[in-house]
Amino acid sequence: MNASIITVGDEILIGQIVDSNSAYIAGQLNAAGIRVVAMHSVGDERRAITEALEQAVAGAGVVILTGGLGPTNDDITKNVLAEFTHATGWRTDAPSLEIIQQITAQRGLPMNRQNREQALVPDNCETLLNRIGTAPGLWFEYQGRIIIALPGVPFEMQALMGEVVRKLQASLRLPPVLHRTVATYGMPESVLAAHIAEWERALPPCIRLAYLPGPLTGVRLRLSVYAPDATSERLVAKAVEGLQALLAEVIYGAGDDTLVSVVGRLLRQRRATVAVAESCTGGKIASLLTSEAGSSAYFKGGIVAYDNAVKTGVLQVRASDILEHGAVSEPVVEQMAEGVRRLMEADYAIATSGIAGPGGGTAQKPVGTVWIAIATPQGVTSRRWQFTNDRLRNIDRAAATALNMLRLAFSPAG
Amino acid sequence: MNASIITVGDEILIGQIVDSNSAYIAGQLNAAGIRVVAMHSVGDERRAITEALEQAVAGAGVVILTGGLGPTNDDITKNVLAEFTHATGWRTDAPSLEIIQQITAQRGLPMNRQNREQALVPDNCETLLNRIGTAPGLWFEYQGRIIIALPGVPFEMQALMGEVVRKLQASLRLPPVLHRTVATYGMPESVLAAHIAEWERALPPCIRLAYLPGPLTGVRLRLSVYAPDATSERLVAKAVEGLQALLAEVIYGAGDDTLVSVVGRLLRQRRATVAVAESCTGGKIASLLTSEAGSSAYFKGGIVAYDNAVKTGVLQVRASDILEHGAVSEPVVEQMAEGVRRLMEADYAIATSGIAGPGGGTAQKPVGTVWIAIATPQGVTSRRWQFTNDRLRNIDRAAATALNMLRLAFSPAG
Repeated sequence: MNASIITVGDEILIGQIVDSNSAYIAGQLNAAGIRVVAMHSVGDERRAITEALEQAVAGAGVVILTGGLGPTNDDITKNVLAEFTHATGWRTDAPSLEIIQQITAQRGLPMNRQNREQALVPDNCETLLNRIGTAPGLWFEYQGRIIIALPGVPFEMQALMGEVVRKLQASLRLPPVLHRTVATYGMPESVLAAHIAEWERALPPCIRLAYLPGPLTGVRLRLSVYAPDATSERLVAKAVEGLQALLAEVIYGAGDDTLVSVVGRLLRQRRATVAVAESCTGGKIASLLTSEAGSSAYFKGGIVAYDNAVKTGVLQVRASDILEHGAVSEPVVEQMAEGVRRLMEADYAIATSGIAGPGGGTAQKPVGTVWIAIATPQGVTSRRWQFTNDRLRNIDRAAATALNMLRLAFSPAG
Repeated sequence: MNASIITVGDEILIGQIVDSNSAYIAGQLNAAGIRVVAMHSVGDERRAITEALEQAVAGAGVVILTGGLGPTNDDITKNVLAEFTHATGWRTDAPSLEIIQQITAQRGLPMNRQNREQALVPDNCETLLNRIGTAPGLWFEYQGRIIIALPGVPFEMQALMGEVVRKLQASLRLPPVLHRTVATYGMPESVLAAHIAEWERALPPCIRLAYLPGPLTGVRLRLSVYAPDATSERLVAKAVEGLQALLAEVIYGAGDDTLVSVVGRLLRQRRATVAVAESCTGGKIASLLTSEAGSSAYFKGGIVAYDNAVKTGVLQVRASDILEHGAVSEPVVEQMAEGVRRLMEADYAIATSGIAGPGGGTAQKPVGTVWIAIATPQGVTSRRWQFTNDRLRNIDRAAATALNMLRLAFSPAG
């Protein structure tokens, strides 16, 4: 089954916002075995939306629109859809009206005509109840196609997509899809692909493999069986075992695991705590660790030691080592890790010191040189890395690499 | 002049990556007075790309494609364009070949056929020299339309867009566009709109106003005059003066200023330094400050004091105040700011303590409660804020609000 996505809104065409909705919807549909063949962004204009709809239904059995469902005059998606699908009239959707009344009351807004009209929907569609916003989703079946309109506010759209996928699976009698994701870090995509090429060639034809790389998450390998049978679970499990044998510690998790969530879980399991001392990453590692809800259970805190005086004064790094080896060096980064571990009475500690760029590079230590240390109850280890020429990418890669080194420090071989 | 944007790549249609290129290109074209009427994403398929091109040239005089220019077999944009524009042959672009040789040598890669073919371009196009990647941009003029292909790697595309806009302005004899941007923080968009409604109504009709809101940058107000004449500069200057009178300190900068760049500039001008003590923001403020190249000139460092023991042990917050008032309180956040200012020998300091959520809220201090303090050579001040229910949004808003409070501390009235 093919699908097409249409995003409606002038704010996208003037470059004011990045359309992240299309990627989210495409990811959800793809995981359900529905193939997205095109995405389209158009302005809040009747003719442009209608043309996009015509093209979409010509090439896809499922069309999902987002945006243009709000209460203001420039929100015309609902009207265009009523016309396009030849609705004969409008009805007030009672459950949606009730939610709108609750939300306007909570926000202290008047229940005016504009708000009430949000519950008015074409008489030929079903509604998808939006519990966190005032615009219900709409579900049309028209000339053998399914056309769905969702609000453009990302978290409202996301909240409705679960129901959309379930309804699509039921309506289209889509076979279930079996997914297993293996999350890896530390091997570049091209090296990884070469390393598992033979395993990949030997995969049963029913298993499809996708590489999903991300700057902070490494490369995720997703194995999928569309329309699985009784043997599929076992085949996938065997394939994953093969991967584990090939990749061993390069694999850090499964499913939706991230380096941050895995490190958090490892610390929780051991009732252990961590602290960080950051120079070139400038707070990024602390920020990543604390982006996880509940991180106060294992994250003690951190020192961003940008100035060398903070390295010596707060972290007790020996000034003579900075003088002799420079701030970006093995002895300094190891003393930073030990210093913050001691200061914050943590079980584990991470430290970074490097040259993020664009300035500060030398022939011996070019931009992208980063030392990372891990201190554990058993001692401290460190390693020198060479990243890129780009400041923000260097910070991201150093932060992710540091989290991965901490993860490896917990493993039996670490 | 109308434009249409086409993004090519299977990775977009499966939801693997968010297409941020289209928004960047649209923003650049919009600022140059070119109106984007549609955006389209298609897979790496000849038929899909050709159909998207046909639709694009039917509705727009300028078409910009990104993606599919790489060296691998699935990169077919160049071939499709050669066919679409009826190229009669191919030529090797010598300047591009030279850059490709340099880049492959730098990266230690072999100069193989695939890399050499990156310099092979249809004989009916000009090239746009890509100095930081191996795929040159292509510029076709075809049946009265301009069709431009750019690499899909965002920083390579962005590096080429300046030249693209200049060439478009010259080719299309576009009138110049006069822009002035006023950056504001601290007034929600709807309140701001009401506050300046009268001023907006009185604007000369030649001045167009755009609201550009962002989570970390506040609301930017862009005043534009398309095809300006001798009076336009003065009219815009007068309008900006009107805004300044209405908004005063809500305005933090102009042009591309961000809160981070403005705070950095203010510190530099005063040869002053700053340190941060973060609880609920967990390193986000330090991370933002250090995202700016050259920040080591004024950023001393920071303490992420997640654990109360770090607040008392490292920052010298009185344990009795934590016991009596809680960690999220005026005395604690003020002592954190003073503590880090003293510890890091900084001139200024920022501190945050709050409940980011989702857990930890109470009736008196619900999720989203954040205390922020600013310590200066003159003393310390603090304020309680109430943000949202969402952890990551709370962290962002607290960080941006803290930077804005520091900015205001520098102003004559601060």
